[in-house]
Amino acid sequence: MIDLDFKKTGGLLPAIVQDYKSGDVLMLAYMNAAAWENTLKTGKATFYSRSRDSLWVKGETSGHTQQVREIRIDCDRDTVLLKVDQIGGAACHKGYKSCFFTTVENGSETVTEEKIFDPDEVYKK
Amino acid sequence: MIDLDFKKTGGLLPAIVQDYKSGDVLMLAYMNAAAWENTLKTGKATFYSRSRDSLWVKGETSGHTQQVREIRIDCDRDTVLLKVDQIGGAACHKGYKSCFFTTVENGSETVTEEKIFDPDEVYKK
Repeated sequence: MIDLDFKKTGGLLPAIVQDYKSGDVLMLAYMNAAAWENTLKTGKATFYSRSRDSLWVKGETSGHTQQVREIRIDCDRDTVLLKVDQIGGAACHKGYKSCFFTTVENGSETVTEEKIFDPDEVYKK
Repeated sequence: MIDLDFKKTGGLLPAIVQDYKSGDVLMLAYMNAAAWENTLKTGKATFYSRSRDSLWVKGETSGHTQQVREIRIDCDRDTVLLKVDQIGGAACHKGYKSCFFTTVENGSETVTEEKIFDPDEVYKK
């Protein structure tokens, strides 16, 4: 197992997710040791959901899983970078390709991406 | 001022730094409200150093500053993405272009970037 410095921040490390082909940064989520191990074992991006307090295989509800193509760790061993194939083309639960669909410029903010799916449709009960 | 959700994580938010031209993810650091405001005001990437417990204008020692070209915030307003021109071509204090110079594959890790500068030379007393 590749050891990361989970102790520094109380058990959770940030994981950046980047589109393998386009290089777009799609999202940031958090991993505990179990999420890290599951990602390595299955090749599916797995995080720890702080709001649900549980392991979270990205896309298990929406079907928009992330197939891991490359894994990098940083110099301090406290940040992970996953390069993935984003199934369905959208990483954000709000229906955008990336969670970073808001651009800040000159003190104001603008949505600078198009919606790819309708969240009400994808997450319907 | 553009408000971010600094309360959720005790005052510090992760900020991903990406090379504006190549799309390479260079590093991840943390911002408090003062770092965020200074970044917006000066156009120079500014973080909060957890180890030094102080505001940190990236590159103030090495000269390898980061000129901000684009700012994105995520859907939860708790992560920042800076697209920057990396002066000097190297973001990592260990002399590599990015902090993510280590690739993990099949249970082992390999350094997959070349060093751009010698840290002993750049950070000499």
